[in-house]
Amino acid sequence: MSVSHELAPGLPWTPDFEVYPVTHAMTGTEVDGETVTVHWIDGRTSQYHAFFLRENSPDPQTVHPLSRELVVLPSAFPEDLRPAQASVDEAGALVVTWSHDGHTSRYHPGWLRAHAWFGPDDNPGGDRTEPCLWRCADLPEPPTFNGPAVLDDDRKLLAWLEALRDFGLARLEGLPLRDGLLEEIVKRVGTVRETNFGRVYHLLAKDDPDSNAYTSVELGQHMDIPTRECPPGLQFLYCRVNSVSGGAGVYCDGYRIAEDMRREEPEQFEALTGIDWEYKNRAKDCDYRACGPIIKLDEKGAVSEIRFNPFLRAPLRAPVAVQERAYRSVRALTRRTQSEEYKLAFPYRPGDLLAFDNRRVLHGRAAFDEAGGDRFFEGMYADRDDLYSRIRFLRDRKLA
Amino acid sequence: MSVSHELAPGLPWTPDFEVYPVTHAMTGTEVDGETVTVHWIDGRTSQYHAFFLRENSPDPQTVHPLSRELVVLPSAFPEDLRPAQASVDEAGALVVTWSHDGHTSRYHPGWLRAHAWFGPDDNPGGDRTEPCLWRCADLPEPPTFNGPAVLDDDRKLLAWLEALRDFGLARLEGLPLRDGLLEEIVKRVGTVRETNFGRVYHLLAKDDPDSNAYTSVELGQHMDIPTRECPPGLQFLYCRVNSVSGGAGVYCDGYRIAEDMRREEPEQFEALTGIDWEYKNRAKDCDYRACGPIIKLDEKGAVSEIRFNPFLRAPLRAPVAVQERAYRSVRALTRRTQSEEYKLAFPYRPGDLLAFDNRRVLHGRAAFDEAGGDRFFEGMYADRDDLYSRIRFLRDRKLA
Repeated sequence: MSVSHELAPGLPWTPDFEVYPVTHAMTGTEVDGETVTVHWIDGRTSQYHAFFLRENSPDPQTVHPLSRELVVLPSAFPEDLRPAQASVDEAGALVVTWSHDGHTSRYHPGWLRAHAWFGPDDNPGGDRTEPCLWRCADLPEPPTFNGPAVLDDDRKLLAWLEALRDFGLARLEGLPLRDGLLEEIVKRVGTVRETNFGRVYHLLAKDDPDSNAYTSVELGQHMDIPTRECPPGLQFLYCRVNSVSGGAGVYCDGYRIAEDMRREEPEQFEALTGIDWEYKNRAKDCDYRACGPIIKLDEKGAVSEIRFNPFLRAPLRAPVAVQERAYRSVRALTRRTQSEEYKLAFPYRPGDLLAFDNRRVLHGRAAFDEAGGDRFFEGMYADRDDLYSRIRFLRDRKLA
Repeated sequence: MSVSHELAPGLPWTPDFEVYPVTHAMTGTEVDGETVTVHWIDGRTSQYHAFFLRENSPDPQTVHPLSRELVVLPSAFPEDLRPAQASVDEAGALVVTWSHDGHTSRYHPGWLRAHAWFGPDDNPGGDRTEPCLWRCADLPEPPTFNGPAVLDDDRKLLAWLEALRDFGLARLEGLPLRDGLLEEIVKRVGTVRETNFGRVYHLLAKDDPDSNAYTSVELGQHMDIPTRECPPGLQFLYCRVNSVSGGAGVYCDGYRIAEDMRREEPEQFEALTGIDWEYKNRAKDCDYRACGPIIKLDEKGAVSEIRFNPFLRAPLRAPVAVQERAYRSVRALTRRTQSEEYKLAFPYRPGDLLAFDNRRVLHGRAAFDEAGGDRFFEGMYADRDDLYSRIRFLRDRKLA
C-alpha cells in the first residue's frame, strides 16, 4: 500500500479543503443504470449514485473553486441523469461522462475512497471517541497541564483539549493573571458563547445577586444555563484571586453517575430519562425557560447530556404520583452527586483555569467565608462542537 | 371571581419573580400521607406532594430571597418527609407544618393555583403559539414595521417580535444607517450568538471568499450554520448599501413546504425526516461538522427544525439505494424552494432589517452584477429562546 500525503500529479482538486491520501488505486469501473461501481486494488468495490457524483464534480460550474461550496442546486440536473461512460485515467482519476449534456467529471481517488460505503462498521471519517467515565478513585485530581506551555505549543494545546473531550474536564495551571487572557484562551478553542450573564461573567459575592453563584453559600453540583434550548457545552473558569477560606471546587462525572444508576437504580434512571423538568431563570430582566429530561439519551440509548440544576428547576406541574416519582429520582441523583464516591474536590489557585463539559460534568463549590479574604473568578462559555472542530483542525494540520 | 394583580396583604412571597394574581380562594385542605389536597372555590381540587411543597417553601432557609433560587438540595429532606398538618390562614395562604422538624411553610394561593395540575389539557403557563404557515400567495410581502417606532416603543417592539415568532420573518424599514445599530437591535431581543464567521458578518463580494455568500452568485434558499449542533435560531440582516442590479432577497417557509410534502409526497418526506446528512464547513481555519435529518420532528411529530443548506451538505456515505432515496428527496425539496408557489421575493432597501427564524424560513438571493454598484449588508445571529424570553418579558411587564 503506497501512502502519499501529496496530490499525485495531474489529479483533480476535491470539493473541500481536506487532504485525501491516495491509499488505494482503482483497478476498474463500470456503469449500470444510474450507478457507477469502482473496483479497488485491495479487492473491495464501492458504488456511487449519479446524483452523488454529479453534484460533487470538482469543476467551477459545480463547486466554487475558492469557497469549495456547491454552486448548483440539486434540482439543476435532469431527473433521468445517468453516467454515459466511466473509466480510470492515467493519473488514476475516475472519469465520468454524463448522458444528457456530455459534461465530463474527474474525481480524485483519495476523495472517492474516503466517501466509499463499505458497510455500517466502516467509518473512516468518524472521530468520536468513547468518553472515559470516572469516579473520585479513578481521577484523584483533574488532568492538569502547564498553562504557558499549552498556549505556546499547539501539540500541548491538542493534548489539553483531548483530555477535556475524554474526561469532561481538564485544568491549566500557572497562567499569568491578566485581563483578557481568558478570552484569548477561549478563542484558541472556538467561539465565545454569550449568555444572559454576559460575555464574561465575574464570580464574586454580590450585594444584589441574580444567581446563587454570586453569593457565598454552598452550591451543590449542577450545570449552568439549563434554561436554554441548547445550554453551553463548555465552561472555562479562571481563578484570578482566591484568599478566602473554603470555596473548594467540587466536580463529578454526570455520565458515570447516570451509567451507575442505569445499572443499580433502574427505576430512578427511567424517571430521570423519561420525565421532563422545566428550568426557569428567576431573573428580573429576562425570562428564559427550557424543558427536558435530566438525563438525555441519544438514539442508541447512550447518555448524551445531563440537564440538572437543583436551584433553577421550576416546580413540577404533574399528577401527584408523577411528582413523587420525579422528586424521588432527583433525590437519588443528588445523593450520588453529594457522595464522596463521585466527588472530585480541590482548591482553586490563582492562575488555574478549569475547562469542563457543562453538559456532562457537574460542578459546585463549598461555602466560603466572605470576611476571610478575597475571591474573584472569571468565566466564559463555548460549545462542544468548538472543541471537536479545534481538535480536528489541530490534528489534521499536524498530519499535513 | 375576584382578580387582583397585587399581592393581598399578609401573603408570602413566591419562589420566583413572576406575578401571580389571586384568581381563586382556597376553601379547605387536607393531608393524606405525603399528599396535601387543596380545595378551590370553583370546586376544583389539586394535589401537591410533600417534596414539591417542601423545596418550594418561600423562606430564606429554602429559597434565597434575593436570587429566588433554591439553597437546599433535594437530598436535604428525610426520605419519610410528611406534612403533619395543613390549613388555610386568614390571609388566604396555605400553611403546612412538617413532621420531622416542626418547620412551617406558607404558600401564596396564586402561586399554588398556577402550579396546580388539573389534567393534561390544562396548561396555564403555556405560551407557545401555533406558527402561521405561508406560501407566496398568503404573504405577498414580509410583515413590515417602522424601524424607528419599534425602537422607541416596547409595544411596537413586541408586535414585531410576535410577527417574527408567528411568520418566521418580519422586517423593519426606515432604519438609520449607522455602525453599531444592528447590535443595539439584536440586544433588544437577546444575546448575540457569535459564529465562526465572527460576531457580526459583513456581506459583500470578496476576492477570497470563504463562503458562497461572499460572492455574487445566486444563492438557493438555505439556512445558515448547519454545521453546528444547534444552528442559530434567529438571523438579522441589515441592509446598509444596495445599488447593484439584481440580488433580491428570496425567502420561503420551510415548515409550509415540509407540511405540504408530508401530505403530497410522503415518501420524500420520510426520506427527509429519516436520513441523516452531514454538514461541513469547507473552511481553512476551522472544521465544524454536524449531522441530522433535513426535516426534524419533535416527539409529537410536529416539524421543529429545517436543517437544509445545499452548498454545505457533505457527500453522503451510504449504500447506493440510500443515496438514491436521499438525493431524490433533496431534489424534491429543492424543486419546492425554487417554485414560485413558495418564493417570497423582494428587493432590499438601505435601512431595511430582515429578522427571520433561521431554522424554519429558508433564505436566498438572486445573483447580482458586481460591476453595477455597491452592496453591503451586516448580519448577526441570536437564538429562538432569546425571542421567546423577550416576548414573555415584554408581555408580563405590560401586565404588571
